[in-house]
Amino acid sequence: MNGMDMEPIGPQNYLYGCELKAGKDVIFNPSDDDGEHQLSLRMVCVDPSTKDELHVVELEGRDTEGEPVKAVVATLKPSTLPSVCLGGFEITPPAVFRLKSGSGPIHISGQHLVMMDTDQSFDEED
Amino acid sequence: MNGMDMEPIGPQNYLYGCELKAGKDVIFNPSDDDGEHQLSLRMVCVDPSTKDELHVVELEGRDTEGEPVKAVVATLKPSTLPSVCLGGFEITPPAVFRLKSGSGPIHISGQHLVMMDTDQSFDEED
Amino acid sequence: MNGMDMEPIGPQNYLYGCELKAGKDVIFNPSDDDGEHQLSLRMVCVDPSTKDELHVVELEGRDTEGEPVKAVVATLKPSTLPSVCLGGFEITPPAVFRLKSGSGPIHISGQHLVMMDTDQSFDEED
Amino acid sequence: MNGMDMEPIGPQNYLYGCELKAGKDVIFNPSDDDGEHQLSLRMVCVDPSTKDELHVVELEGRDTEGEPVKAVVATLKPSTLPSVCLGGFEITPPAVFRLKSGSGPIHISGQHLVMMDTDQSFDEED
Amino acid sequence: MNGMDMEPIGPQNYLYGCELKAGKDVIFNPSDDDGEHQLSLRMVCVDPSTKDELHVVELEGRDTEGEPVKAVVATLKPSTLPSVCLGGFEITPPAVFRLKSGSGPIHISGQHLVMMDTDQSFDEED
Repeated sequence: MNGMDMEPIGPQNYLYGCELKAGKDVIFNPSDDDGEHQLSLRMVCVDPSTKDELHVVELEGRDTEGEPVKAVVATLKPSTLPSVCLGGFEITPPAVFRLKSGSGPIHISGQHLVMMDTDQSFDEED
Repeated sequence: MNGMDMEPIGPQNYLYGCELKAGKDVIFNPSDDDGEHQLSLRMVCVDPSTKDELHVVELEGRDTEGEPVKAVVATLKPSTLPSVCLGGFEITPPAVFRLKSGSGPIHISGQHLVMMDTDQSFDEED
Repeated sequence: MNGMDMEPIGPQNYLYGCELKAGKDVIFNPSDDDGEHQLSLRMVCVDPSTKDELHVVELEGRDTEGEPVKAVVATLKPSTLPSVCLGGFEITPPAVFRLKSGSGPIHISGQHLVMMDTDQSFDEED
Repeated sequence: MNGMDMEPIGPQNYLYGCELKAGKDVIFNPSDDDGEHQLSLRMVCVDPSTKDELHVVELEGRDTEGEPVKAVVATLKPSTLPSVCLGGFEITPPAVFRLKSGSGPIHISGQHLVMMDTDQSFDEED
Repeated sequence: MNGMDMEPIGPQNYLYGCELKAGKDVIFNPSDDDGEHQLSLRMVCVDPSTKDELHVVELEGRDTEGEPVKAVVATLKPSTLPSVCLGGFEITPPAVFRLKSGSGPIHISGQHLVMMDTDQSFDEED
């Protein structure tokens, strides 16, 4: 956590983690009362309890027209590829994660970034 | 989606996803009426329905002379490497994705970035 | 090490390494007397002495509410995936690493960044 | 392609692709009449016609003394690791790619960046 | 190589490559007479002559107290994972690479960056 003595500029960095199971979507849509939010996806990983089949992680977000768009962000299988790095795939809310295939559980982790200072935006970053 | 209270500087970040099949090219060539476009490629993934053979994803873009150039950006096989991270491979349109080998489907995902402010360009980013 | 002739701006870069074993958590919570700290996670790797089972590395940090949150950052198995790149997963202390599954040892490495200059913050970086 | 209405600052982004075979080196040494050049290596991939043996991609560039130096940038095998991400390995010309082992073909792709504005340099980027 | 007409700001980019064998450490500790040095590690790769066993690459650097610290940066095996991307793991000299396990050879490659201009530092970069 960053203390009170920090500069108000730039995003604050928090930890994000969620678990996907078949039929259990995970929504990323924080209230923007407390600033502008972004998710920098880092890792998608299987669990020892994950069945040995291909698991496909689908992300639903918005395209340039503001319409919903689906994209596959990872395909994993415990005995072949138990972890995959997404390398900082930046997601602007609202977004939904779901398993397109496989029963899970699948773990997703990343950085939840919050921009407090409205004089700046994430667009300047990266 | 970023709201009206955002700064007009820097690129807007949208989700991009497409699916490749043999003989079905995907073109990325958005109209630049609404700004300057760029694609930051993140992941290439197989599907449970993808046949277990090597799939080669080819990208056609432009070289420094403005001539078409082809480049292989991923080779995947469901039983060996079901996902591969491209790590933010930046593509300036026009670009065409196609399967050089394999019947698909193969999923591509990334960030579709749009620079609204003509006083800045992507060239300043990254 | 950077010498006295260096600019006081920006973070100083040090090496970070730790080893996880079952039941032996590793805490990253440096005193901020000497500046603001951040960890840029780079690699998670097995050891030749690591048993051939799935090892799940869990990270505990803070979410946007300041509450503890757990995230899986890597799942490895010596015979399948002996190393995985985290690609600069940025962690703000306090944070705890532990093995959620597997007996270890598992090695974690990265860059320990220290921001000396309080007129800047990590938020401006990256 | 970026149009005439673009800012002259920062690098222009083009696609780069080449194919390596045993005994057939590929040289990256564009004329700098039209600006300063850099190659951001992204992916190295096998082809379905690539023999199932270890292929080692060697890069020859210059060290800090201006002397030729060789570095291995990827080792691939179709049945083990058909693609590997280089994550933006930045190469300043002149550079030569060759197969140190294996008969190929091996595909290399990346971004060819050209800095037109001599008042800036790549050194400021990244 | 960057010519005389370049701006003196920012780091110069050179190629780095070394080979590790059991009992043969590689030291990265360039004289800083000619500027400030940094190593951006990109790839660790096996060779066709590398024995099919787990190879563990250890890096020795300095922690925030200036004390020596060891970190495992890659674990490879020719038949499982012949190459691994380190994604730009930044190393400040002095540093030592060695094989903690395995007889090698193992190849390491990256970018050797030199900051000539003492009015800037690497701390501002990245």
